Amino acid sequence: MGEFDLIERYFKRPTHKAALGVGDDCALLNTTPGMQLAVSSDMLVEGRHFLSTVDPARLGHKALAVNLSDLAAVGAEPLAFTLALSLPRVDEAWLAGFSSGLLRLADAHGCELVGGDTTQGPLNICITAFGEVPPGDALLRQNAQVGDDIYISGTVGDARLALEVFRGTHALSGEAFEQARLRMEQPTPRVALGSALRAVANAAIDVSDGLLGDLGHILKRSGVGAQIDTTWLQAAGSFGEARLPAGITPVLAELPWNKRLEFALSGGDDYELCFTAPVNQRELVHAAAWETHTPVTRIGRITQELGLVVLDPQGQPIAKRFASFDHFA
Amino acid sequence: MGEFDLIERYFKRPTHKAALGVGDDCALLNTTPGMQLAVSSDMLVEGRHFLSTVDPARLGHKALAVNLSDLAAVGAEPLAFTLALSLPRVDEAWLAGFSSGLLRLADAHGCELVGGDTTQGPLNICITAFGEVPPGDALLRQNAQVGDDIYISGTVGDARLALEVFRGTHALSGEAFEQARLRMEQPTPRVALGSALRAVANAAIDVSDGLLGDLGHILKRSGVGAQIDTTWLQAAGSFGEARLPAGITPVLAELPWNKRLEFALSGGDDYELCFTAPVNQRELVHAAAWETHTPVTRIGRITQELGLVVLDPQGQPIAKRFASFDHFA
Repeated sequence: MGEFDLIERYFKRPTHKAALGVGDDCALLNTTPGMQLAVSSDMLVEGRHFLSTVDPARLGHKALAVNLSDLAAVGAEPLAFTLALSLPRVDEAWLAGFSSGLLRLADAHGCELVGGDTTQGPLNICITAFGEVPPGDALLRQNAQVGDDIYISGTVGDARLALEVFRGTHALSGEAFEQARLRMEQPTPRVALGSALRAVANAAIDVSDGLLGDLGHILKRSGVGAQIDTTWLQAAGSFGEARLPAGITPVLAELPWNKRLEFALSGGDDYELCFTAPVNQRELVHAAAWETHTPVTRIGRITQELGLVVLDPQGQPIAKRFASFDHFA
Repeated sequence: MGEFDLIERYFKRPTHKAALGVGDDCALLNTTPGMQLAVSSDMLVEGRHFLSTVDPARLGHKALAVNLSDLAAVGAEPLAFTLALSLPRVDEAWLAGFSSGLLRLADAHGCELVGGDTTQGPLNICITAFGEVPPGDALLRQNAQVGDDIYISGTVGDARLALEVFRGTHALSGEAFEQARLRMEQPTPRVALGSALRAVANAAIDVSDGLLGDLGHILKRSGVGAQIDTTWLQAAGSFGEARLPAGITPVLAELPWNKRLEFALSGGDDYELCFTAPVNQRELVHAAAWETHTPVTRIGRITQELGLVVLDPQGQPIAKRFASFDHFA
């Protein structure tokens, strides 16, 4: 099978929102007048971002999910994406799985594949996704205000837990491992929540490199500090204020306290939204969580004093330095 | 140096057209009301698209050039681009060269770097570029009409010639090799010509996989055939109808006839525009070429009879089958 057959068979779809999709020199998008186009680009490398043994359908899902998560973090509605794919060889079973996982998630968000590139080389997946947001409404990292509540969506730490099992530093029962592994291999981009938070939150980021490290980007850009409490790490499924299970899963809640702290606060690969909102917006935050069926947990507040302080459940600062994930560190 | 320092030092620039550039979850673009956004994505892999020894500044230039060439092929004006970069390690000399070549070309076209991704892995460069075109004005592959003239911009065949020297199948003098090598390593995207052809040409494609192969995409999509003459391959710098040197360079003109045919017609990596236009538009094609200082050579015509016939300078069909480039063939 050649390059053009490969595109034709696995990736060419009719487009509805795009003026022109796969198959010309460029895709053509008609963006809605009076909207801003949001653009995210992420690259996944075998051995670095995923294991060679991963289910290709899950990998297809994840490759798009990490980009949709970036769109969610600015509150944009997904519109379209391009896929650049470097493959060692044409493996039809792999391609069928990969494209099915990819396009299933794309369909679920009405996000059309409009073009890209295929080439021979080490396995590498680069997706660039486009979304739309009303001008001025995008949730930026730079707008956190002193006194804001800090929230996290969904649950954090499971992807890191699964990674540690793969690394052999941790053991889990089969069922618990499958749950954690699914969180690592098939994350849920919080697209609906991101949109719902546009008029509610002040600042947002998606957690890919670890909660504290990514929150740090908000703090640095906004010129503020933060205090994070850890009471939400004491038990799973507290149903929080959004009346939905949140914070950490039962699997994570069974870990020793120090592991729980490390995996949840600096684990990475979570693709949850960390965001800040004024105290007087709490009801609207809960409404956004409820309407989008997305767990949301309040985990701290923005402070005038710079730096990031983590408090133990007794309210005492934890001295431990939490590593954030850096691809070249 | 970490991932964020790397971005900060080599790739973060102030943006003027983009509402938000590098450094948040997404870039934000305000597209002009009443325009279509054109999107192109290309991936360059070490060993496949470039040699490990290539000058990094030239590689930076080429990585963007191949995308700008796709924008040119639909007649779009460049707006912005994202860069996803997988690097084995942080090599500052390499990064300084790569970013300077990349951003010099970007500046020349007013095309802003607005985001992307950096990661550790085998050297891989994925650029997604955005341009604008008035709705309905994009030059598509599907619009070639029977009777249209077929044109090629600039010169073709030199990139392939340089590749053959690297492969050791051909020898060239130092100066001739440098010229051919520059064409391979630092191609000129025909952006101004593409825009100028919007109201003039019927169909266009950029030549990356070889002239005949890429013309074949126009023929297939338009449901037509073509007859290509080869008189323009008899000598270099004929100054053609655009009064500019065109078709092939003096270096290529010194090759034996069969090599000239093969390299020019199916060499690949040329990043010239192949386009079709009605016979009564010849003066406007010449004007577009002249105004944009771009050589343009008329090389054949679109026929009702399907298939692609190449005629020798005596007007006799050449039986030889010319291979087009397919990354998985």
